Amino acid sequence: MAEKTYRVTGMGCEACVARVTKAVSARDGVSRAAVDLIGETLTVVYDESRVDFAKLRDAVEDAGYGLEEI
Amino acid sequence: MAEKTYRVTGMGCEACVARVTKAVSARDGVSRAAVDLIGETLTVVYDESRVDFAKLRDAVEDAGYGLEEI
Repeated sequence: MAEKTYRVTGMGCEACVARVTKAVSARDGVSRAAVDLIGETLTVVYDESRVDFAKLRDAVEDAGYGLEEI
Repeated sequence: MAEKTYRVTGMGCEACVARVTKAVSARDGVSRAAVDLIGETLTVVYDESRVDFAKLRDAVEDAGYGLEEI
């Protein structure tokens, strides 16, 4: 398991936070996802053999937001 | 062309408005989409031979929101 923090772009409210959290949590290999609106961050605990940055970014982009490495 | 107004659920801010507007506008057959955050409405001008409520609802749901007939 790994824990990493990324920057999330495009969020404006708690509905956005809920949407990003749900999109990332739904991915196979993700055990925990925590999104901070003010800090614009996603902290995620995941299985490195099944998830990587590109997959997390896809999940976030599919929900209509952006994900960047910090 | 038809113009109809629907209820949009789950929006919390202008970033949500922009996301719903973009998702609906991108559908073939939609000429204009206007979203109101406070009223929770989507007003859409569309070609009835190419678009129906189910397609509009799919577009909105894919973006993470809900669409209901009023």
